[in-house]
Amino acid sequence: MAPLTPRLVVPIDVKKKPWEQKVRLHNRWHPDIPPVADVTEGELFRVEMVDWTGGRVRDDDSADDIKFLDLTITHYLSGPLRIVDAEGVPASPGDLLAVEICNLGPLPGDEWGYTGIFERENGGGFLTDHFPSARKAIWYFEGIYAYSPQIPGVRFPGLTHPGIVGTAPSVELLNIWNERERKLIETGHESLKLCEVLHQRPLANLPTSDNCLLGKIQEGTAEWQKIANEAARTIPGRENGGNCDIKNLSRGSKVYLPVFVEGANLSTGDMHFSQGDGEVSFCGAIEMSGFLELKCEIIRGGMKEYLTPVGPTALHVNPIFEIGPVEPRFSEWLVFEGISVDESGKQHFLDASVAYKRAVLNAIEYLSRFGYSKEQVYLLLSCCPCEGRISGIVDAPNAVATLAIPTAIFDQTDKVVI
Amino acid sequence: MAPLTPRLVVPIDVKKKPWEQKVRLHNRWHPDIPPVADVTEGELFRVEMVDWTGGRVRDDDSADDIKFLDLTITHYLSGPLRIVDAEGVPASPGDLLAVEICNLGPLPGDEWGYTGIFERENGGGFLTDHFPSARKAIWYFEGIYAYSPQIPGVRFPGLTHPGIVGTAPSVELLNIWNERERKLIETGHESLKLCEVLHQRPLANLPTSDNCLLGKIQEGTAEWQKIANEAARTIPGRENGGNCDIKNLSRGSKVYLPVFVEGANLSTGDMHFSQGDGEVSFCGAIEMSGFLELKCEIIRGGMKEYLTPVGPTALHVNPIFEIGPVEPRFSEWLVFEGISVDESGKQHFLDASVAYKRAVLNAIEYLSRFGYSKEQVYLLLSCCPCEGRISGIVDAPNAVATLAIPTAIFDQTDKVVI
Amino acid sequence: MAPLTPRLVVPIDVKKKPWEQKVRLHNRWHPDIPPVADVTEGELFRVEMVDWTGGRVRDDDSADDIKFLDLTITHYLSGPLRIVDAEGVPASPGDLLAVEICNLGPLPGDEWGYTGIFERENGGGFLTDHFPSARKAIWYFEGIYAYSPQIPGVRFPGLTHPGIVGTAPSVELLNIWNERERKLIETGHESLKLCEVLHQRPLANLPTSDNCLLGKIQEGTAEWQKIANEAARTIPGRENGGNCDIKNLSRGSKVYLPVFVEGANLSTGDMHFSQGDGEVSFCGAIEMSGFLELKCEIIRGGMKEYLTPVGPTALHVNPIFEIGPVEPRFSEWLVFEGISVDESGKQHFLDASVAYKRAVLNAIEYLSRFGYSKEQVYLLLSCCPCEGRISGIVDAPNAVATLAIPTAIFDQTDKVVI
Amino acid sequence: MAPLTPRLVVPIDVKKKPWEQKVRLHNRWHPDIPPVADVTEGELFRVEMVDWTGGRVRDDDSADDIKFLDLTITHYLSGPLRIVDAEGVPASPGDLLAVEICNLGPLPGDEWGYTGIFERENGGGFLTDHFPSARKAIWYFEGIYAYSPQIPGVRFPGLTHPGIVGTAPSVELLNIWNERERKLIETGHESLKLCEVLHQRPLANLPTSDNCLLGKIQEGTAEWQKIANEAARTIPGRENGGNCDIKNLSRGSKVYLPVFVEGANLSTGDMHFSQGDGEVSFCGAIEMSGFLELKCEIIRGGMKEYLTPVGPTALHVNPIFEIGPVEPRFSEWLVFEGISVDESGKQHFLDASVAYKRAVLNAIEYLSRFGYSKEQVYLLLSCCPCEGRISGIVDAPNAVATLAIPTAIFDQTDKVVI
Repeated sequence: MAPLTPRLVVPIDVKKKPWEQKVRLHNRWHPDIPPVADVTEGELFRVEMVDWTGGRVRDDDSADDIKFLDLTITHYLSGPLRIVDAEGVPASPGDLLAVEICNLGPLPGDEWGYTGIFERENGGGFLTDHFPSARKAIWYFEGIYAYSPQIPGVRFPGLTHPGIVGTAPSVELLNIWNERERKLIETGHESLKLCEVLHQRPLANLPTSDNCLLGKIQEGTAEWQKIANEAARTIPGRENGGNCDIKNLSRGSKVYLPVFVEGANLSTGDMHFSQGDGEVSFCGAIEMSGFLELKCEIIRGGMKEYLTPVGPTALHVNPIFEIGPVEPRFSEWLVFEGISVDESGKQHFLDASVAYKRAVLNAIEYLSRFGYSKEQVYLLLSCCPCEGRISGIVDAPNAVATLAIPTAIFDQTDKVVI
Repeated sequence: MAPLTPRLVVPIDVKKKPWEQKVRLHNRWHPDIPPVADVTEGELFRVEMVDWTGGRVRDDDSADDIKFLDLTITHYLSGPLRIVDAEGVPASPGDLLAVEICNLGPLPGDEWGYTGIFERENGGGFLTDHFPSARKAIWYFEGIYAYSPQIPGVRFPGLTHPGIVGTAPSVELLNIWNERERKLIETGHESLKLCEVLHQRPLANLPTSDNCLLGKIQEGTAEWQKIANEAARTIPGRENGGNCDIKNLSRGSKVYLPVFVEGANLSTGDMHFSQGDGEVSFCGAIEMSGFLELKCEIIRGGMKEYLTPVGPTALHVNPIFEIGPVEPRFSEWLVFEGISVDESGKQHFLDASVAYKRAVLNAIEYLSRFGYSKEQVYLLLSCCPCEGRISGIVDAPNAVATLAIPTAIFDQTDKVVI
Repeated sequence: MAPLTPRLVVPIDVKKKPWEQKVRLHNRWHPDIPPVADVTEGELFRVEMVDWTGGRVRDDDSADDIKFLDLTITHYLSGPLRIVDAEGVPASPGDLLAVEICNLGPLPGDEWGYTGIFERENGGGFLTDHFPSARKAIWYFEGIYAYSPQIPGVRFPGLTHPGIVGTAPSVELLNIWNERERKLIETGHESLKLCEVLHQRPLANLPTSDNCLLGKIQEGTAEWQKIANEAARTIPGRENGGNCDIKNLSRGSKVYLPVFVEGANLSTGDMHFSQGDGEVSFCGAIEMSGFLELKCEIIRGGMKEYLTPVGPTALHVNPIFEIGPVEPRFSEWLVFEGISVDESGKQHFLDASVAYKRAVLNAIEYLSRFGYSKEQVYLLLSCCPCEGRISGIVDAPNAVATLAIPTAIFDQTDKVVI
Repeated sequence: MAPLTPRLVVPIDVKKKPWEQKVRLHNRWHPDIPPVADVTEGELFRVEMVDWTGGRVRDDDSADDIKFLDLTITHYLSGPLRIVDAEGVPASPGDLLAVEICNLGPLPGDEWGYTGIFERENGGGFLTDHFPSARKAIWYFEGIYAYSPQIPGVRFPGLTHPGIVGTAPSVELLNIWNERERKLIETGHESLKLCEVLHQRPLANLPTSDNCLLGKIQEGTAEWQKIANEAARTIPGRENGGNCDIKNLSRGSKVYLPVFVEGANLSTGDMHFSQGDGEVSFCGAIEMSGFLELKCEIIRGGMKEYLTPVGPTALHVNPIFEIGPVEPRFSEWLVFEGISVDESGKQHFLDASVAYKRAVLNAIEYLSRFGYSKEQVYLLLSCCPCEGRISGIVDAPNAVATLAIPTAIFDQTDKVVI
């Protein structure tokens, strides 16, 4: 006779603030943030999570909360969890941690989410030069479906997933992160082509103690101060997984994460009811609180066996994924193409980011002919299950990127087709 | 009683050279290349095509033909076709040309193809800094399946498509192309980030009369010389469609192409039995001769109605696509991730090309643990139906790209899974 | 601001008996079973349900509970629910009730189920002449997946659905049911071809007051006695929907049910974590307690507009369905065929039931060569997402039926393939 | 270097009569029909086939050809082919013959087909009591798509397949067939429930020398007369495969056929551009001439190892199939249900044929409300890729069958949805 329900390891009370939760949350990556619980491999367990802002965005029509959001709070994560085997031996550096997402969803009683466009001066987004002002769409869930009063005529099933699944970095890996991102900022905008159009955006977000939450570590102590000054921000995905925002990491998927510290120290958060490839408006998924039901397996020595470093150190690896079997199934797709020529007509060299930007702009222009404002479409393409592809990356000088939109997300499929 | 078979508009004899074909081929884009035939909208017609090299790659084990291939020959196209409506009025600039791909395939009697890695000094590829030497894999077709003696243990159904579907550019558009690509070359490598790793590759390929084939225009005449000096190379995809290499443009798909010249002047070529997103090794699809069965519709004024320019002129548009219903269906995918940190450990800013490069390298490293050489995997990922996604493009500084590989392409699915 | 969570209309406490639930359950169809709650069209609401036996099957290794189960208890249903429009006007006879299944699943804390083979003398099943003895498999759920200690080496995602969704019959319809089923029993086994092989099974189950539960109607009262004597058993699917056991009626599906009484009186129950087409072992799905999140729409006059009776009265109609978009996706299927020649070699005439029986037997024989007992395979084919098709129904004298099994349900896909 | 194209083993000239073909055809099953060619296992080969009537149905508006069709001609098959291994040793009784369908399609120049309703007095069909008169729809092919002037507003991709793939029976098996079918006719209509509604249809078709074509055997000889008197008709599917009419047996599928005679003697025919499950109107697929590209493998002793007889002799087996990966992909289905209560209101016992009949009638009634005649819908449901399922086969007394129709076959998807 097996246990009939997953063990609740991190409970969340959405009426409480992130720092008031019974099991303490954290919003930075650091090896010294202590685990909040042990989990045994093979065990089915449940982790609940606040939305990435910890409740700062409201279910109303005003985008002011998005506009003035303090981004140093991001992202509130649940964990770290220390993973041990049946004998109680923790995962070790060099192991691979297989995490199966057996189930996930919104938290009962909190079945809603939001998609935002950040203000150009506060976060921005992929198209911030075109859409500099904050916007917000609220999404209500009807089981697998979401709809928004702000974007009428649209309803679609969620490909729900966690934006963030990651293990804690080692000191050595943390140093690599901080150093390379610091160098990026120092080198500056001139050397970076994408900055021509995205110059308003911060190049990277270095460690800061502002709004730093470190789980069981008491704020204000010397230990807290030290960690806060070193801990990596959670915004980008990195070698440990982290904020990968891979929209297909849904029910039944499996992630193989490298282990850098004893116990693996697994953290999760940033639940998305749905997201489009690229999450283009940055606060772009349907952001929500939620839960994960997970099962872990430790593959001893698996990091060395399966992940080959591509880079200067043995730590320059990336996770591997397997996709689950219950993704929403669409049969009709409308596909927009972009090439690496920017809006000014300038030719770039095999630049997939520029090409994808053009594809997204083309889709926005097209769909805005069918009764939507461009801001509505920008929000929609951030959060609906659209697919962004690198179709051609070799035919110099043009990269070709495509954005495929399932027409079934529109109430009347035939409406948006030529 | 309808006609029972599509009208053959461009026949190909694969035993003849490209310049010996009964209906003359061309390998450049120019408004003055005269149409070789008229096609009426609604009519089902058949176009046959040589492989992109016109038969210069042989069915043998040596990669010398790839190594020394003269790239000024690329790509031999069938057409241009002048599209007229039922009253005989040709498509006009500003119209949209809907081209439905009703069927396609290899040419009977010529059911084979090849995938190549170009030599670093002659063409290169996405990973040319890792794989500088020419390689070749031959693929034999068994109906919908392909297998290669050079990459044993692999067999997969083709998502067959034309690499190139395009309309002729107007003079104005041609000038835009030539100017922006010339400027790219002039500005040079220093300003271009991807060049750090791809410096051996040409930035662009400007017009050249070398190996120029212009359909009915007689080589050596003044007219030929003028056009040859102006005509755009077919290598990159551009506003007219062209070499988009969109692997999902298969049976049942529809392309909406802008019309820039009277009659549209539709050309097609570069048939691929199969290709992976990105076509990473450059000569990366399973290249073959083949046929298309097409049906066209002229949407009068549709370019203005459906395609909004994103750029300085009204010509800065891109085609739209609809995907067909008979793509091969895979349920298990192995997904590799890359972030925009390059192999030297340097941090790039939201660069999807760098992220995708890392994802592809990660996949090659992984699969080469299962009995394949890295060159074999590089060839395989160029041509198998793998999907390249831009998963995250906003979480500064890291773009996240993913490469998803259907495990069913391997004879023993379980073999390559952890 | 919308309500953030579905309204709980029928709560279930799985620790209580069916007749002890706060909102009373019922296990018969009758127009006079009073509604337990009102639901407004457009409203998202939640109904919880006991498993069909109301907890009589235990999570253990013994099949004795299955063997001695009193089938007069079946099936405990939640409801009836009275559906009204925004103005409070109830659905009327002649309307169509569209019921969307927005979400569903097991009850939290009760995430397990069972599949049984009934004893030949107590219920039997499709293959009762081959498998006369009671058997049981327990299934534990890991999110979307189920596995069974009794059938090792198998794990699959559930295509979860309610076995029963139905509206209350009118008096007239109830009379039709009782009369035709009584006549069947009277006519007897001799006239019924399937009885040659299934003779041990009851032909039909006529009304009985044994174990009759009628919601708010007090047991033992004259009203109770009258209804109990008339009320139809819930075992077969009929014109009102009912026990259709359509395995694809999962998340995102929509049922269009005819309305026969004022308020429609919608009832649901018999939740299945998963089921194969046919539910061949009779207690054949993965039976569980569970919940539905539903949304109703009243289509006034829709029964007349969309459902044409095929039969002697206007009541001889059947529901229509639309399938949801998140079914598990399988790409490899092993297909077994059967023709309408029975096990004795006797030729039947276009009999799809006999053909399907042969197909199921063929599949059991085949799979039992791979380390499973035949009873294990019979249980498995009852509950895994296999597809039963009527492939040919005209080529006299043989009907051809097929049973398609997704190979991915086996831990090692390659294991069961030739 | 592999052969670049499949070897043409049976060529067809559609301008010639079936009995005038260069490689002689046959239309009966008998062990003594001599092979027309040898095929080696592993070899890719091509078989061309006339349509099942050998060209007797014309591309015009009159159904007279269907009405007066002499059914003793059916079906003209290509073969038999003698399958040998690399050493030239033929397949032997007890082996399993794996036949992979690598490719298939209509014959070039003959890209059209037809669907017919047989006259009640000449063949009939599943609904012959409702549709007693002959009808015909012509279908024209546009690559993967078919459309019919007789059923406007419909266009769909074909799930093309051979209706017939089979091996020759042994003498012993042939005797079993003839005996059981003779007994069926002798026992007569009274004992057969389906006959109540289908009484006009022949119960079976016993051997007849009328229109008998036996390949290389000269008509009129004593040998011919003997075989003609014994040879089984090709109408029903049987132990050797034969006319299974399994619509999913398309590109990339694999059939495992039992071998009953030396060489296996494989025959194929009855090509269908598309068919619905059940092929309800009998001449119900889109019937056409066509080709198959096949590859065979001999599994020595495989019949014994993989096929367990379910019946009185070792010959009572059925083929196994694997489905191919390129079926058309539909995401929206409209599902009609039927229960085993017939049109007179009579209750049948778990009869899937009756239930399916009701489901098909319900679908016809429904769709005929959207501008189609019932005859048009009957034809359409015979040939479009609709799925017929046995959903419930245990809930006495009602079997539940469903018919699922992909809405995308209609030009305007939204048109036929409630």
